[in-house]
Amino acid sequence: MELPRLKPRGESSATKIDFAEYTPELLPFLGQAAALNLEVAENLARALAVAPSFEIKQRISYATSQVLATQHALVAEIRSLHADPDEHMRPFADALERYRTLATSSDWHELLLTCYLSGGMLGDFFEQLARGIGGDVGKRVATLLSKDAGAEDLATMLRASIAADAVLASSLAMWGRRLVGDTLLVARSALADVDSPGTPAHHAAEATIEPVFTELIAAHTRRMDGLGLTA
Amino acid sequence: MELPRLKPRGESSATKIDFAEYTPELLPFLGQAAALNLEVAENLARALAVAPSFEIKQRISYATSQVLATQHALVAEIRSLHADPDEHMRPFADALERYRTLATSSDWHELLLTCYLSGGMLGDFFEQLARGIGGDVGKRVATLLSKDAGAEDLATMLRASIAADAVLASSLAMWGRRLVGDTLLVARSALADVDSPGTPAHHAAEATIEPVFTELIAAHTRRMDGLGLTA
Repeated sequence: MELPRLKPRGESSATKIDFAEYTPELLPFLGQAAALNLEVAENLARALAVAPSFEIKQRISYATSQVLATQHALVAEIRSLHADPDEHMRPFADALERYRTLATSSDWHELLLTCYLSGGMLGDFFEQLARGIGGDVGKRVATLLSKDAGAEDLATMLRASIAADAVLASSLAMWGRRLVGDTLLVARSALADVDSPGTPAHHAAEATIEPVFTELIAAHTRRMDGLGLTA
Repeated sequence: MELPRLKPRGESSATKIDFAEYTPELLPFLGQAAALNLEVAENLARALAVAPSFEIKQRISYATSQVLATQHALVAEIRSLHADPDEHMRPFADALERYRTLATSSDWHELLLTCYLSGGMLGDFFEQLARGIGGDVGKRVATLLSKDAGAEDLATMLRASIAADAVLASSLAMWGRRLVGDTLLVARSALADVDSPGTPAHHAAEATIEPVFTELIAAHTRRMDGLGLTA
């Protein structure tokens, strides 16, 4: 899920090329992408269970199917490398647990907003990592993560609710602002060689990654604006 | 989800023919099948969200995808009749609400057992109703509902947990016994002309339907046995 696009297709940038240096190994990358995508699916599943009408449930169910299809394709990529998906997802369990505490809700609007905003940021981020990895797998995974996966309809549902209820709009705006930091935190655990703060390599990595995160935040702001929320 | 089969394929019986007289109109039938199948999907979604490991979540996610695919096919049948799926699901909201209170849990084993046993009984029941309806739609829906939809793997997971834990086995057996009545209750609201207790027509209908429900209960008992639970 990554609407709107970070940048027009075909536009190449120095940022993207530098970023590739910090892409992790293939299996840890696929493991993390699968673990975080499964978390998006779980939040959609939670929203499906608590949504107030058959109509809303039905619409959420299509997004859920699409995110699960992405999930099963990611897992199939791990299996095709003769590796165990569970083993390569497990290292991200702790980071996910923290994220889950902050980004999960019992309210379906908040859950959908998490899926749309956080799922969108994570989709953008892993799509860029996948392009950095390159090769056939990298291309397939980037294509997979560039799919809408139901995000447009999540946005449509949220936009309608937000336009109709100023109190809801205000509380969802706050929820959306909270999500940025939590999402960047859970995303950056994928980057190689940035886990030793204070080292020169770490500083160099930070400097390179910074513009990418700036882009992710800009795309997040555009998503918020598109929903009628103040970022 | 309807494993094991109610009866060998190709065996015809008087029960099945009589039963057809009580099949509801096509749109209410599809509406109820979709509403109850969505409830199975929601319980799988709840199980996905609370399951304890990536491995279990992954396995539940495949069953969820399959039940959602059934859901989307049922909804497509309603749409192909130029009808609104929401409108034809809504009449079953109250019956479902009561069922949900009784058959939903915060425990993933209980949720999977609900999906396997209750989903299995409902699948058997609606498959028979679909055969009674006949025609192209009836045949398509019967084929759709005769699919495994991940039930075999739910049974495998449950069997492993039950074999390993006698206390769990005992509490799940009780859960399974509770589900029978609740499931029959939510299922029978689909039958035409049985809603006026005390009338001669009602008694005749009850007499015809009784053997079908006896079969559903027998299949339920076989499922319980297959899991290592006392029915």
